[in-house]
Amino acid sequence: MSVYERIASLGIKLPEVTPPVAAFAPFVRSGNQIFLSGHIAKKDGKPWVGQLGENLTTELGTTAARGVAIDLMATLNLAVGDLNKIGQIVKLMVLVNSAPTFTEQHLVANGASELLAEVFGISGKHARSAFGVAQVPFGSCVEIDLIAEVHE
Amino acid sequence: MSVYERIASLGIKLPEVTPPVAAFAPFVRSGNQIFLSGHIAKKDGKPWVGQLGENLTTELGTTAARGVAIDLMATLNLAVGDLNKIGQIVKLMVLVNSAPTFTEQHLVANGASELLAEVFGISGKHARSAFGVAQVPFGSCVEIDLIAEVHE
Amino acid sequence: MSVYERIASLGIKLPEVTPPVAAFAPFVRSGNQIFLSGHIAKKDGKPWVGQLGENLTTELGTTAARGVAIDLMATLNLAVGDLNKIGQIVKLMVLVNSAPTFTEQHLVANGASELLAEVFGISGKHARSAFGVAQVPFGSCVEIDLIAEVHE
Repeated sequence: MSVYERIASLGIKLPEVTPPVAAFAPFVRSGNQIFLSGHIAKKDGKPWVGQLGENLTTELGTTAARGVAIDLMATLNLAVGDLNKIGQIVKLMVLVNSAPTFTEQHLVANGASELLAEVFGISGKHARSAFGVAQVPFGSCVEIDLIAEVHE
Repeated sequence: MSVYERIASLGIKLPEVTPPVAAFAPFVRSGNQIFLSGHIAKKDGKPWVGQLGENLTTELGTTAARGVAIDLMATLNLAVGDLNKIGQIVKLMVLVNSAPTFTEQHLVANGASELLAEVFGISGKHARSAFGVAQVPFGSCVEIDLIAEVHE
Repeated sequence: MSVYERIASLGIKLPEVTPPVAAFAPFVRSGNQIFLSGHIAKKDGKPWVGQLGENLTTELGTTAARGVAIDLMATLNLAVGDLNKIGQIVKLMVLVNSAPTFTEQHLVANGASELLAEVFGISGKHARSAFGVAQVPFGSCVEIDLIAEVHE
């Protein structure tokens, strides 16, 4: 199966990406590496506001992280034109908007990690750092950035 | 205009960089990439102490981030000898010392992003992650690290 | 002295690394760079729970960070097979589980930085970002990730 067939078999439709008018870019290529900007969790197109340990369960946080991974794949698709060219998902940084008492950032992050492993197989297995941050832009519950390697 | 002419036209004078005696380095080169250590916001040569949402406005935070970008350019200049050799500003990580209620980290980060875009043009448009952290060394209000690519 | 002789002369024994069954990997190689996942501080094989500025001194945090650096070297050893092949420790990101009042993240981070400089000499001097986070998975007091370059 191609990457797109696996995405379709999971019932996922990659969203359209409209690069924002901003002082920064959604992605930058450096050699064979693509650096994706931090993507925040969204719900119905708006920031998914919430804080783990305060007003959001771990399960919902995991769902939010999975949603961010879908958006990251859409940006990656825009960046390289063909997701089958992705040789390796190299690194994820998963920022979980956390109350000082919440310590399950790794479970939240799995929502993104497991989806990438399902879609990209062995090439989707990445290095990862997950931790709790004091806040995320717009009050979103999760933010994730990513480094991928293009295979040519 | 060269990068230095653009810097001068903005009324900016790059500060002298004195690499600290420390167990780590202000920058490290890996292949064509230069990794810059986290630089903290300073005012009159001392850490600019403050927390967004607590005792510092978004506007001042943006000014602080712009100041960090100036220091980052000075370190980059030391690292490569000639800023015109910078092929691309690849990635910024912008850490905003944030009270749990502050959600405008993206506006603070723009202080750095917009300056880099002004100075380096299209090559200055980088990928970025901005988020709120619980604290920054010395209580500084902003910390930023950077990856740049050298063009040869 | 080889890297292993320096490690032995410091009285350090690298622990066995058992890659966890997980959706992510302890390390990923991209070109000549090795990206290590965030490693959390442990004590007696379990997460070293604590927060700086709340219930853990800076000195203990520094010891915890040194311990994480030992675990990172063990993973690096697994990744490349021979630590003498490490051309450069490129970048460390040091996350310190911090109460809002704690501002000595740089001193905590030195526990890791100084050990890497002792073991790898000039090649161990890395770029670094250290900052305070709201929480770390499992409530651990310190988390560190690392990028290294392999020399061939």
